[in-house]
Amino acid sequence: MILTVTPNPALDRTWRVDRLTHGETHRTDAGAARAGGKGVNVARVAHSQGASVLAVSTVGGRTGVEFAADLGAGGVPNRLVPVAGATRQSVAIVDESRGDTTILNERGVNPADPEWAELLGEVVDALPGAQVLVISGSLPPGAPPTLLPLLIGTARDAGVPVIVDTSGPALLHAADAGASVVKPNAAELVEATGISDPVGGARSLTARGVELVLLSLGARGMLAVTASEVLHARLDAPLAGNPTGAGDAGVAACAVLYADGIRDPAMILTRATAWSAAAVLMPLAGEISDEWPALESRLIVTPYDPTAREERL
Amino acid sequence: MILTVTPNPALDRTWRVDRLTHGETHRTDAGAARAGGKGVNVARVAHSQGASVLAVSTVGGRTGVEFAADLGAGGVPNRLVPVAGATRQSVAIVDESRGDTTILNERGVNPADPEWAELLGEVVDALPGAQVLVISGSLPPGAPPTLLPLLIGTARDAGVPVIVDTSGPALLHAADAGASVVKPNAAELVEATGISDPVGGARSLTARGVELVLLSLGARGMLAVTASEVLHARLDAPLAGNPTGAGDAGVAACAVLYADGIRDPAMILTRATAWSAAAVLMPLAGEISDEWPALESRLIVTPYDPTAREERL
Repeated sequence: MILTVTPNPALDRTWRVDRLTHGETHRTDAGAARAGGKGVNVARVAHSQGASVLAVSTVGGRTGVEFAADLGAGGVPNRLVPVAGATRQSVAIVDESRGDTTILNERGVNPADPEWAELLGEVVDALPGAQVLVISGSLPPGAPPTLLPLLIGTARDAGVPVIVDTSGPALLHAADAGASVVKPNAAELVEATGISDPVGGARSLTARGVELVLLSLGARGMLAVTASEVLHARLDAPLAGNPTGAGDAGVAACAVLYADGIRDPAMILTRATAWSAAAVLMPLAGEISDEWPALESRLIVTPYDPTAREERL
Repeated sequence: MILTVTPNPALDRTWRVDRLTHGETHRTDAGAARAGGKGVNVARVAHSQGASVLAVSTVGGRTGVEFAADLGAGGVPNRLVPVAGATRQSVAIVDESRGDTTILNERGVNPADPEWAELLGEVVDALPGAQVLVISGSLPPGAPPTLLPLLIGTARDAGVPVIVDTSGPALLHAADAGASVVKPNAAELVEATGISDPVGGARSLTARGVELVLLSLGARGMLAVTASEVLHARLDAPLAGNPTGAGDAGVAACAVLYADGIRDPAMILTRATAWSAAAVLMPLAGEISDEWPALESRLIVTPYDPTAREERL
């Protein structure tokens, strides 16, 4: 079973307008609300591909009621710890003319320590049945810096490898605490490590003990950085679509392979890049296109050569 | 008692951002949700000024639960008819740097005929205690064109005058059905009547039997058009603030005076303009500043002279 933890879940609300104009009033159809947050998206994608999953998170307030109802309706097995603070909302306004999306992310309310303890308790209860733990997304402002190390340490003590997708100082804390895989993008790596070369930043994480850094490059694919090699996977031509949730689909691919005992970086990189690309073809985060095997067969995987013109980051 | 009907209520959600940028992701504090819709705003303002009110509307879905809870928390007496369709949402994104607001209004779900009949039943029940009926705001798409005439006719049969604030063909239907007062803005008048001169458009409504047209001019104040005269009220200097709900405050002023048996156009125009201005000073629709008497004393009220340079529309 793939156990996912989402420390800062969100109720994603989406509205569509013909053309978003500053300071104007727009008529729209009814918006959609959906349980979101990176760990939830990972669980959705893995679940949709037949993997056994358990999504652990928190819920509070009216938005939490909506969150729980939607997650339940999607059939994703879950354990949601009730918290006093309302589940945050994320607002997406899709501009149909321009084809872009304007997003507002509420920062989220930090649960009280006993509420965090209960989340940790759910993870401890679930670990015996888990082959991999995924911790994905931001932390609410004010979250204890010990939270991620505690979750990672608990999983490692139970013999369960941990995949972490987060940013800022939490990324370094995760590496130091023993995360097996991290999946930053180039900007997050530079920001967290202070190293201006993303590959150098990724290498600084493997030096801290991370087995595999999946470095997402957006339309240019993904790098797999280990202590001994750097591989690059990319499509032969860029895809048009919705990149929201593409990274989460990559993490889901990695989690599914990890749960099956697979550790080969090239195999993980290939599947993660294919699922990321397949997520771009879908309108909502947490879904991937059934066309992913065709995308996977189109991937070009090469050792990364920083001197090659088409490889420069 | 002032009876207000809001045929297309909305749950107003507001988020604040430093600067809204197209296609970008923004971090925000938690948004606020509030029961809205023009008739609700009218009831709130009249209630805040000590008038006896009853707000009648519909509620449905999760948004309806939030709507009812907020309206109840505000202490505004109400009767909310349960409907199957979810109460629509209205999204306001306040740009703190630019000082403007970008709005998305969901169109709303048209209640089924038995649900409309129940709304009408609530109005019939309440009319014996009412001195005035206010019908404010849009109709959901597909609403029966007979709805407004039926509400207006029922009130008139009970001897209760009717104030209507709506737009489009419904404005003409309201005039023909015997509305005593209507409150369009210049653009709405031109659109509904097809007459390019707003005062001419207003006169076409008094010709259809309307006693008083309150023609809101935004920062330039308000006109009162009757069969025999046209008065203009305006402030000596423009106000900075939030114009959302200014028109509703003007309607509330008119309703309070009508409920007291006052029909003098100059008096109504003065109070409506003062309350509209006092609403501009408040951050939320449905509220007016306690400073309204000072604003009222600053008003300049003159017979409207279309040839005067400062009066041109």
